[in-house]
Amino acid sequence: MKKVEDYVRSIPDFPEPGIIFRDITTVLQDPDGLKLAIDGLKERLDGVDFDVVVGAESRGFIFGAPLAYEFGKGFVPVRKKGKLPCETVSAKYDLEYGSAEIEMHKDSIKPGQKVVVVDDLIATGGTIEAAIKLIESLGGEVVKVLFLMELAGLNGREKLKGYDVESVITYPGN
Amino acid sequence: MKKVEDYVRSIPDFPEPGIIFRDITTVLQDPDGLKLAIDGLKERLDGVDFDVVVGAESRGFIFGAPLAYEFGKGFVPVRKKGKLPCETVSAKYDLEYGSAEIEMHKDSIKPGQKVVVVDDLIATGGTIEAAIKLIESLGGEVVKVLFLMELAGLNGREKLKGYDVESVITYPGN
Repeated sequence: MKKVEDYVRSIPDFPEPGIIFRDITTVLQDPDGLKLAIDGLKERLDGVDFDVVVGAESRGFIFGAPLAYEFGKGFVPVRKKGKLPCETVSAKYDLEYGSAEIEMHKDSIKPGQKVVVVDDLIATGGTIEAAIKLIESLGGEVVKVLFLMELAGLNGREKLKGYDVESVITYPGN
Repeated sequence: MKKVEDYVRSIPDFPEPGIIFRDITTVLQDPDGLKLAIDGLKERLDGVDFDVVVGAESRGFIFGAPLAYEFGKGFVPVRKKGKLPCETVSAKYDLEYGSAEIEMHKDSIKPGQKVVVVDDLIATGGTIEAAIKLIESLGGEVVKVLFLMELAGLNGREKLKGYDVESVITYPGN
């Protein structure tokens, strides 16, 4: 019986020497891989009381939307700057080189809503830290943060201290 | 009883005068809206024999992934140039100003696979025409092309002639 990690394609020295890129397209394109991935996230929401799923552009959409649909909840996309047509809140975060900015619609989260945040990967945790800041600025309460994969060596959990964080697959390195 | 189109937010003169932007974030963030949208796409696949769902970055991910999961199929993302780590095929297509380029992994579609292509919107049809070209170059057979929304006035169907195209919502104009 294969596990979801068996479907991940690991590419050494991409995008630069010393980095192992964890490619999830081989998970997604296989019916069993996709099912194992979504089910692995789903079971971590068993018994969790929440109203809405937030996923970050663009791989967070692939996991966030099925989860929202499965649980009968709404899905809120966090988008890169400039893509959302109505009034937004935005947050900057640091990348290895330079910075990036993400946005959410101001009316996307209602005060008091319980929010699950989903993404494919936690590396240094910058994107999700910024997303949580936006959700909380709108009055949402983050009740769970879920990742398909975690690069534990990059210590992204440090940035998410105080939140209930779970990952389906944990890689010890980076 | 509300219909899925009741959840779409129409924004006049965005991004420029004369254009009505059809914002789906209000569909997605509402549990009933999201369910109506996915169910509307799902019922158009009843009885369709297919192997894999292809969705284009990034809003196509929101609809393609739940459909693939629901039907027990694989999901293949079409991505913007430079995001996929392994060997790809790519296609350029024209935008109103300039052009864009999309990619798929060479191993994402196996020859003979029956493919459903999903996106949020068909406007002029350029993105999906390019995606179909890539799928066919890999030996896939496009058996259905599904959109949540169609801007019939832009006549994107003309580009997709010969394919089985359906939309959940049709707007007569642009």
